[in-house]
Amino acid sequence: MIQGLNFIGFELSGDNTEYIHAFSTLENTYLQGQFRIATESEIEKALIKAREAFKIYRNTSAMQRAVFLETIAQKIMEKEDELIERTMKEAALSYKRVFSERDRTVHQLKLYAQMLKEGSYVEATIETADEYRKPERKPDLRKMLEPIGPVLVFTASNFPLAYATAGGDTASALAAGNPVIVKAHESHLGTNELVSDAIIEAAKQCEMPDGVFSSLIGKGIQLGQHLVLHPAICAVGFTGSFTGGRALFDLAAKRKNPIPVFAEMGSINPVVLLPNQLKQNLKKVVKEYAFSIVLGGGQFCTNPGLLIGLESKTLDEFIKKLSKQIAISESRTMISENIWAGYYSKRQKALEQKGVTLVTEGTGDEELKGRPTLAMVNGRNFLDNPFLKDEVFGPYSLIVRCKNEGEMNRIANQLNGQLTTTIIANEKDIKNYSETIDSFKENAGRIVFNGVPTGVDVCRAMQHGGPYPATTDSRFTAVGEDAVKRWLRPVAYQDCPKSYLPDALKNKNSLKIRRIINGKPSRKTL
Amino acid sequence: MIQGLNFIGFELSGDNTEYIHAFSTLENTYLQGQFRIATESEIEKALIKAREAFKIYRNTSAMQRAVFLETIAQKIMEKEDELIERTMKEAALSYKRVFSERDRTVHQLKLYAQMLKEGSYVEATIETADEYRKPERKPDLRKMLEPIGPVLVFTASNFPLAYATAGGDTASALAAGNPVIVKAHESHLGTNELVSDAIIEAAKQCEMPDGVFSSLIGKGIQLGQHLVLHPAICAVGFTGSFTGGRALFDLAAKRKNPIPVFAEMGSINPVVLLPNQLKQNLKKVVKEYAFSIVLGGGQFCTNPGLLIGLESKTLDEFIKKLSKQIAISESRTMISENIWAGYYSKRQKALEQKGVTLVTEGTGDEELKGRPTLAMVNGRNFLDNPFLKDEVFGPYSLIVRCKNEGEMNRIANQLNGQLTTTIIANEKDIKNYSETIDSFKENAGRIVFNGVPTGVDVCRAMQHGGPYPATTDSRFTAVGEDAVKRWLRPVAYQDCPKSYLPDALKNKNSLKIRRIINGKPSRKTL
Repeated sequence: MIQGLNFIGFELSGDNTEYIHAFSTLENTYLQGQFRIATESEIEKALIKAREAFKIYRNTSAMQRAVFLETIAQKIMEKEDELIERTMKEAALSYKRVFSERDRTVHQLKLYAQMLKEGSYVEATIETADEYRKPERKPDLRKMLEPIGPVLVFTASNFPLAYATAGGDTASALAAGNPVIVKAHESHLGTNELVSDAIIEAAKQCEMPDGVFSSLIGKGIQLGQHLVLHPAICAVGFTGSFTGGRALFDLAAKRKNPIPVFAEMGSINPVVLLPNQLKQNLKKVVKEYAFSIVLGGGQFCTNPGLLIGLESKTLDEFIKKLSKQIAISESRTMISENIWAGYYSKRQKALEQKGVTLVTEGTGDEELKGRPTLAMVNGRNFLDNPFLKDEVFGPYSLIVRCKNEGEMNRIANQLNGQLTTTIIANEKDIKNYSETIDSFKENAGRIVFNGVPTGVDVCRAMQHGGPYPATTDSRFTAVGEDAVKRWLRPVAYQDCPKSYLPDALKNKNSLKIRRIINGKPSRKTL
Repeated sequence: MIQGLNFIGFELSGDNTEYIHAFSTLENTYLQGQFRIATESEIEKALIKAREAFKIYRNTSAMQRAVFLETIAQKIMEKEDELIERTMKEAALSYKRVFSERDRTVHQLKLYAQMLKEGSYVEATIETADEYRKPERKPDLRKMLEPIGPVLVFTASNFPLAYATAGGDTASALAAGNPVIVKAHESHLGTNELVSDAIIEAAKQCEMPDGVFSSLIGKGIQLGQHLVLHPAICAVGFTGSFTGGRALFDLAAKRKNPIPVFAEMGSINPVVLLPNQLKQNLKKVVKEYAFSIVLGGGQFCTNPGLLIGLESKTLDEFIKKLSKQIAISESRTMISENIWAGYYSKRQKALEQKGVTLVTEGTGDEELKGRPTLAMVNGRNFLDNPFLKDEVFGPYSLIVRCKNEGEMNRIANQLNGQLTTTIIANEKDIKNYSETIDSFKENAGRIVFNGVPTGVDVCRAMQHGGPYPATTDSRFTAVGEDAVKRWLRPVAYQDCPKSYLPDALKNKNSLKIRRIINGKPSRKTL
């Protein structure tokens, strides 16, 4: 039974008489549960609890936090089909997809737990003293990464588990040693409640401080604004629309003490079709892209929204074949009414742009569903038009036909920052178009060769982030172990007595972590 | 002979008829040289050159850039006494101090060169493919840090060499592979010209692209504003006042595509005098602080501006002894007229605050000189007054007498972010006051024990940065090897053909760098 309450740390709370409902686009109906909007005093309580919890939580050991994350994973699994079924309804996703997304969520939690157990993520760096250095004694300096403070998380509409309440942002922030406050996503209120409950159960079981996690219910933008501006919040994670992310970034930048906002705002993920590889692998490329463009109803942040090729018979052939595939692709229910309405209005506007023609559409009705769409424009018209460089969130892709490499290059230089850029190229193409590839790379966080951008592997070598407006800070990733770096700051200890040094920096390397000692990596005792 | 021209890449340029002069507070006179204010078209040319140079410079090898940095160091040394003498006059510093600051500057350049030669700073991370992984093939993913793009540097007034034209920001940005544009400091126009000349000579000799470095002359805030808002600039380094840093941060945040601003804006660097250590080492502490408070005319960003102790006979004794020392300290010529005027107006205001009393002053006249000043206030009056938590830039320190540990703790929680916090404590103090020490640590980038905060060692374990308003981003340092991280962003290569992979990520580890391969550090070939 969904209770519709806020989690103010360990306390379930619903002081307000005002509430909202979760709506299922899949069933076209409101779902069970009246979700009480958090009152000012409930919000304040959660913030104060987070600040107080930080004083304890920051001093927990990495091992304790590892167990906490693993316990969260376990408690999520224990929600079994109740969670999966609620998420399916709220996010209009298949059983298979939600099942595998839950796996990903649990995998992420365990990955950070693993990182904590290994322990080297604190980047311990030691420079020992030199009493005889001239002109001055060299002090003993030891540096490590420490938690930044309570983190506010805004969750994604398109990944109701993996980028949500216990998703990558929450998992990495908790791993780093920061309390987390989640603003419950209005599209996944029941999912949020079930997952929040799992986190709180785990926190209690692991004897974590009350306030290490809270989740709050709000309507519209007020709650988010209130939280971002509150002095107890030290950093923000956000996955969502450009408008939402930029608004939070602007708010945070205007604070008396500005805080970092790590907003991942999606992108159009250009795909550069270079001629030799395209010719030699036409069928494979068509097949992969017919799949990737409509994957998850086109609602992936790495959805390939732009296919850029050189005018040629091969490109014509590619368009013809891809068009055939898209034409038989079915419309799929979209995540929310807002996203659905946004898709058709943006798509309409895109198709009305100068020189843009509709190549083909998929099948099925449009009620709450997104119709797969393939459009086309020539390079010149694309270059002139900033609107075409923006994302149409949904199963929409625009093919750009370039007259020559020069035009392709100018497009590369005009594009906004991207999470990914994909290059379809063989060795000959790489040789012939290296400057073009370089130009496209400058705008991207991840460069994919001869594959599709959808599918974001959760691992240490992943970069999920990119130059603005893909994210607000290209220096960080939202996926993989390195995502913890968003929530950590270096602290140096100078001539610090052993009794006050953190374990990671003591001579005796009791944590057995990798450290840099006087410039050399080592796991040894000093 | 100082020419007073702008360096637009390799081109010396002075199109404007308008010029400014350098003023020496030491000699109370204008110095030789008419410095032509950069025209709009000169500025634009420098920016375009930087953007174009980036296309070449980003592809130079770490080894090439190492040689470039070493050559800059060499060319700076070749300026010999011409440089030292000009800097002495412009910054009102002694021969010894400028000599040692030049050493530090050259040392920093060599340190980054060393880091480049070793090469592991790119944090190469490789996860190899797993064709048989279920449910999906695991792709080959390889990630490394790459340069962010042209960096704009605003130099410090208080370190005319080490935090200036070829200082830490420039050296780390060039090391990372980014072209640099320096806004010449109005107080050090001649120094800037000589050092810029050294950089350009080195760039030519090392066959670096025209535009890899420019330095521009401006008056007031216009030039800086213009540069920060220009799309070619990808990041900003700044060392200076809170007002200046915050203004640049706000400008950059308002851009269509916001860029990171790394502003180091100084702090008051609290010193916590815990009773046991103070009692046992009274003489030593007095001696060290009498020196540290007036070091460099109190114009260090790590100057100890706040001494916090518990009311006791020992504290009275400390104040008495320190007061004696400060009373015989001489006023010293300050860096610029502005800073000098600012010191007295801020000091005046500080002394007028409720409950603040003047303990003692140093000797000597006040014309362009800063008079060492020791003031005192009780904890309650300090807590109530936000003005007292701001920096008085110059040889000024405020002693806060706390009634008890609770009051000390409340002060810790109210303080702004700091570059450093110093704890004067022995083992007994650490045991008795651990919560207080924790609270102070939360606000600081570096925590110093039983020493003075002045003296920022240039090494890998240094953290020179801290929570706002010490800097705009506590996650980075401005000093030491890790300072390059400000100007680098991770780029992931997915299934990238060997021919396009950067050397750092190729199977054959020809650079012999330390990499993380499938989670394990290794210098081996894959």
